[in-house]
Amino acid sequence: MMLIDFSMDSTLLSQYLAVRKQTESLCKPLNTEDYIPQAVEFASPPKWHLAHLSWFFEEMILQKHLSEYRVFNKDFNFLFNSYYQTVGPRANRFERGVMTRPTVEEVYQYRAHVDTHMKALLSTTQPDEINNLVILGINHEQQHQELLLADLKYVFSLNPTFPVYEQNTNLLLDENAGSGWLTVDEDVYNIGYAGDDFCFDNELGAHKVYLHDYSIAKALVTNGDFIAFIEDGGYEHFNHWLDDGWSWRVENEVASPLYWYKKQDNWYHYTLAGLKLVDKNAILAHVSYYEANAFAHWKGCRLPTEFEWEAASSQLDWGKRWEWTASAYQPYPGFLVNDGAVGEYNGKFMVNQMVLRGASVATATAHSRASYRNFFHPHHQWQYSGIRLAK
Amino acid sequence: MMLIDFSMDSTLLSQYLAVRKQTESLCKPLNTEDYIPQAVEFASPPKWHLAHLSWFFEEMILQKHLSEYRVFNKDFNFLFNSYYQTVGPRANRFERGVMTRPTVEEVYQYRAHVDTHMKALLSTTQPDEINNLVILGINHEQQHQELLLADLKYVFSLNPTFPVYEQNTNLLLDENAGSGWLTVDEDVYNIGYAGDDFCFDNELGAHKVYLHDYSIAKALVTNGDFIAFIEDGGYEHFNHWLDDGWSWRVENEVASPLYWYKKQDNWYHYTLAGLKLVDKNAILAHVSYYEANAFAHWKGCRLPTEFEWEAASSQLDWGKRWEWTASAYQPYPGFLVNDGAVGEYNGKFMVNQMVLRGASVATATAHSRASYRNFFHPHHQWQYSGIRLAK
Amino acid sequence: MMLIDFSMDSTLLSQYLAVRKQTESLCKPLNTEDYIPQAVEFASPPKWHLAHLSWFFEEMILQKHLSEYRVFNKDFNFLFNSYYQTVGPRANRFERGVMTRPTVEEVYQYRAHVDTHMKALLSTTQPDEINNLVILGINHEQQHQELLLADLKYVFSLNPTFPVYEQNTNLLLDENAGSGWLTVDEDVYNIGYAGDDFCFDNELGAHKVYLHDYSIAKALVTNGDFIAFIEDGGYEHFNHWLDDGWSWRVENEVASPLYWYKKQDNWYHYTLAGLKLVDKNAILAHVSYYEANAFAHWKGCRLPTEFEWEAASSQLDWGKRWEWTASAYQPYPGFLVNDGAVGEYNGKFMVNQMVLRGASVATATAHSRASYRNFFHPHHQWQYSGIRLAK
Amino acid sequence: MMLIDFSMDSTLLSQYLAVRKQTESLCKPLNTEDYIPQAVEFASPPKWHLAHLSWFFEEMILQKHLSEYRVFNKDFNFLFNSYYQTVGPRANRFERGVMTRPTVEEVYQYRAHVDTHMKALLSTTQPDEINNLVILGINHEQQHQELLLADLKYVFSLNPTFPVYEQNTNLLLDENAGSGWLTVDEDVYNIGYAGDDFCFDNELGAHKVYLHDYSIAKALVTNGDFIAFIEDGGYEHFNHWLDDGWSWRVENEVASPLYWYKKQDNWYHYTLAGLKLVDKNAILAHVSYYEANAFAHWKGCRLPTEFEWEAASSQLDWGKRWEWTASAYQPYPGFLVNDGAVGEYNGKFMVNQMVLRGASVATATAHSRASYRNFFHPHHQWQYSGIRLAK
Repeated sequence: MMLIDFSMDSTLLSQYLAVRKQTESLCKPLNTEDYIPQAVEFASPPKWHLAHLSWFFEEMILQKHLSEYRVFNKDFNFLFNSYYQTVGPRANRFERGVMTRPTVEEVYQYRAHVDTHMKALLSTTQPDEINNLVILGINHEQQHQELLLADLKYVFSLNPTFPVYEQNTNLLLDENAGSGWLTVDEDVYNIGYAGDDFCFDNELGAHKVYLHDYSIAKALVTNGDFIAFIEDGGYEHFNHWLDDGWSWRVENEVASPLYWYKKQDNWYHYTLAGLKLVDKNAILAHVSYYEANAFAHWKGCRLPTEFEWEAASSQLDWGKRWEWTASAYQPYPGFLVNDGAVGEYNGKFMVNQMVLRGASVATATAHSRASYRNFFHPHHQWQYSGIRLAK
Repeated sequence: MMLIDFSMDSTLLSQYLAVRKQTESLCKPLNTEDYIPQAVEFASPPKWHLAHLSWFFEEMILQKHLSEYRVFNKDFNFLFNSYYQTVGPRANRFERGVMTRPTVEEVYQYRAHVDTHMKALLSTTQPDEINNLVILGINHEQQHQELLLADLKYVFSLNPTFPVYEQNTNLLLDENAGSGWLTVDEDVYNIGYAGDDFCFDNELGAHKVYLHDYSIAKALVTNGDFIAFIEDGGYEHFNHWLDDGWSWRVENEVASPLYWYKKQDNWYHYTLAGLKLVDKNAILAHVSYYEANAFAHWKGCRLPTEFEWEAASSQLDWGKRWEWTASAYQPYPGFLVNDGAVGEYNGKFMVNQMVLRGASVATATAHSRASYRNFFHPHHQWQYSGIRLAK
Repeated sequence: MMLIDFSMDSTLLSQYLAVRKQTESLCKPLNTEDYIPQAVEFASPPKWHLAHLSWFFEEMILQKHLSEYRVFNKDFNFLFNSYYQTVGPRANRFERGVMTRPTVEEVYQYRAHVDTHMKALLSTTQPDEINNLVILGINHEQQHQELLLADLKYVFSLNPTFPVYEQNTNLLLDENAGSGWLTVDEDVYNIGYAGDDFCFDNELGAHKVYLHDYSIAKALVTNGDFIAFIEDGGYEHFNHWLDDGWSWRVENEVASPLYWYKKQDNWYHYTLAGLKLVDKNAILAHVSYYEANAFAHWKGCRLPTEFEWEAASSQLDWGKRWEWTASAYQPYPGFLVNDGAVGEYNGKFMVNQMVLRGASVATATAHSRASYRNFFHPHHQWQYSGIRLAK
Repeated sequence: MMLIDFSMDSTLLSQYLAVRKQTESLCKPLNTEDYIPQAVEFASPPKWHLAHLSWFFEEMILQKHLSEYRVFNKDFNFLFNSYYQTVGPRANRFERGVMTRPTVEEVYQYRAHVDTHMKALLSTTQPDEINNLVILGINHEQQHQELLLADLKYVFSLNPTFPVYEQNTNLLLDENAGSGWLTVDEDVYNIGYAGDDFCFDNELGAHKVYLHDYSIAKALVTNGDFIAFIEDGGYEHFNHWLDDGWSWRVENEVASPLYWYKKQDNWYHYTLAGLKLVDKNAILAHVSYYEANAFAHWKGCRLPTEFEWEAASSQLDWGKRWEWTASAYQPYPGFLVNDGAVGEYNGKFMVNQMVLRGASVATATAHSRASYRNFFHPHHQWQYSGIRLAK
């Protein structure tokens, strides 16, 4: 793990500016047209991400803590709020793709406006309350950087011409490391974030968990491993599948990971570098929890719980792909939902979702740690999500 | 009627160029972003309209009749084909809004490419077969000009900021002309196009229709007339409604024409010039057939059939608003579907749709005649559709 | 045609009793269980039909015209009202199949109660107003007799055991009569019911229609004819299909008439006598308007309009199968919707439906005439609906 | 807890017969009609339950272990299989309500047939393998007894006449016991079934769980408590709700527990004894997990995890109402899905469902224990499900 703890050697302002710049540089390869569409409810347009990320700083920090700040445009609160229902009515989530105005240029002006005022604010010493909100905003922006790429890939994939985002950014070809099984002894383990730096509220409440003996794979499942599952009829044998997973598979006629196409006995997949032959040695991505679980069952194994994952993490090479765990996303002991909009950040989603641990090559640098809890509904495939086995 | 018969005083080439230019000038007020979204299945993005109209000339004329013509981009056939299934597979109609590539600029290059070759073709004398296809293409483009405006209005209307397309193009304020009833005597009337100029295939098959005595209103229903219907509970009394219409109304919670909003006892509506107060004297628009029929029932009247409309048309002031008739869209005697893609033009749609007669202020100049048959499903409101009563 | 005009030689009471008895004798082969389910919104359970038919007489006649009549059970008005919205709130149409109470026995008691009072009423001379309502009720009950059989067949067909209703009631094996084409000359024809006996309101408004020369087939399309269409790929070639029809076909994966199954190169179909081999000489049934239209297109023909059908009817052998016409169901000149619940009988449905002419072997005896207008939405297959060609 | 451990003092055969008889006595109040409908996918008709329970013994035991046993009717395997996909194709789950044949009488004959052969089998000593399957079948039948009542209540509730199942079986009026909070100390607790009697596979894998200090309420939430939540706007304030729960509430317009109706300021609810005034002191039932969670949030508390519940269970008065826990339904350490159909019993469902602990007054006598894990999707309200708070 090459975690750059950038909170050490830089001011909060420089961190803020670096992350903001990173978001914009992810958008460099885009045409104006690419900023607009929303193909499905769960994936937002780049323009919306860009504007929402500025709205977050404006709404949570500038309006409350910078005297004489004037909002850039009062309509934007309505348009670029996400699920923060305390802040006011919000646009129907699925209509983000029809909002052609404000233009992309205006959204960049909005970002510049917010940055100017954030610079003013951060050029003087601020109380912890504000600094913490800024750090939250930075981490929030990093989360959206990965979402932006995943959402963009989804929209591009629907275009029969398979557009190239960047020739060298396929985010898919990392090599696996390690092999065999790591065994872990029965004991009580400490789980959750117990340090002094930033973490999300869902990692707090460090607590003890009793784990029985288990083994966890050192390597992630590869495309080649998964092709063996496909070729063995893994998608056709319901006995490998959870009941809800089987219904999802049948209803959506799923027969491969997302973005995969079979042409004349070869598997291809759409990547951000265009349509490519699937590399059998590369790490598998774009499977749902249902597929991960079925694959594990076919292998005679299971997925690790998030606690097993965390207890073993210091001995694992992780960070190349989000890893579905066997754990439903639920609160840690003592978890409390904060008051107000920031409090809506995580607790709202603690039902029907599964935890993913680790990080992916699309994750922002320094935006990962062993206690990090990512989560998605079990049918979603559009994230860079893969499989690590346990038994 | 101020029909400019532009086939008289100009060459086919100059007509072609004028219509092409008109399409582009309708797009002048647009930003790049506005070209992209498709909000509902029935309304296409401006970029798609623009590209499709060039595709039509390329596919139907240039590829077959201009030697050595090379298609601009072979993917475009797939992307910009509409319902012409003979020509090959076509993109899922509802995914037009996610195709960010080709860019708007490329689509304009495509238009220029097609225009260049059409000029080459039309600069020499061509056989009737080709000229007729060009005339068809011109009329096809004019139809899409009106669709483009209606589709654009639909997308804009979903934006809470009510964007202005053009300050002076609301297309809604025409004054009514005439009043009272025109009575028409029982007789056999000639229906359908019997001239030598262009008409669509659905107007051919001029034939005799026996009409009994009837009266038809000289004026169209105004906004004020329709407000009286609303205020009398017209939307709440199922007895005014057709059974399918009532289901539509209840399911979609329809309580006014499309784009209308009530604020503090006043009716406003979204227009291409922005949100405006409803003018009670102006001609009503954006009602469905179901609403038109319910209004007529409430008035103790009915809608005219398309034959009654056509037989009376020379004595009516029409052209300010498409008028729902009581006639289902069905073939005239002897109607034959042509072979090939051009043949798919009209016949495919002759079920479940109602005929509208007349023209609207959004209709292209010279693109209307008394025998013209427009048609939409009875629940659609997004066209400039209004009501003329009969009894 | 063996029309028994039973209005001639019998009293209204004896007619009433005969029709009521006929409904019950259609239910003789049923078990209690068969009276209950509603498989789809458009098909009602036998228990509902039985109760609704009594409710009609109670609501429209006994309550208003028999002094001191007391309703059998006031809940029944709510439960067994159909679309008569003027009478009061009605049960959600798709929940007819969950109403296990009242029991079947109670519904028969209800019928007996209504019959007793109708006998009392009709044993004395009544004014025309009442007699006309009784005649309407009788015709209404006859309509439901055919619906009851069609609805029952639909539910039975979903049972993998293919239940037998009656060994000898397959209603499908009639032989065709006639062959070749009947030609009809261009002229003005009288259309609509002009006699003194009962007809439905949608047949009134006898009027003149101008028809051009046409030919109409003497025979109906047979199962063998339709198998040829299937084997020629008729369901796969979109060019035979209306656009809405093609969408319907694709979405519902329709590849044969309703109730047909192919096993080892032979076509079988479910009939009320159980699963049977399809008889190629028998008259085709259970096709939608979309299929009828596609078949006609494949044959290079078309369907007759309802006016062409009526004008030729005296020279045709009809009554063996409802025949889809090319005419949308619309009002005749001068059609007026009556006030009150009886007025909701027909006019409400005059949109999105196609007219069928003739009658089927499931139609009640004497319940047919040349001016009779049956109608269904164009996708429905569950009626005994077939095809006659025209050109 | 008055658990009657009936395995002690009786033979397996007498237990079998007692449970079988109990199922039939639950059906005594039913008319034939009541056995048929399926109102929603999740609730099966009584006839299906009755037949399925015999099918289970026939398929899992008699066919394999009783020599010369002949199946009662080979169609029944198809019709009355539930989710056991290994056994063969099964009828579409939502079409259980259209299967009018076999009749109710035939289903009772089927039960008698199975019982006769089970008696023959169990009258001689059998190996453990068979005895264990019989015990599983008995417990399976007891589970369906409660489902049968819940499903029946759901169908009856849709009938506007509110049918009475039994005058004295409302299953809703139990009084609460205890008050205040039980505090439990931080420690490692043993969880799961560790005895020698029957338990379901999902209770096996007894294991250690580390619990931190917590308090758990001695009493269950009452109707009166929940009315206070309603009156305080609990259903309108999204901040009390999980995100998925809020969507469910809005989409389904949920504003009270299932079966509740407000008339003139009083709350009524449908019970198996008919429509009754809600008793404020009685224990709340028919809330979803979403409602349970929102109520707990409103109270400033939370729901207990299933481990907290089990660890405290010996000190709680439980068994009057299934209690939603905060735990997603997931496997215990070492859980293995058995091979074959029996193995599909529980493991298939371990995603998207929440655990309920305890038992209800509708639960079969002796069919409960502290380690018992019931589970349903978080939106379901139709079980006798209530709320116990923790903090």
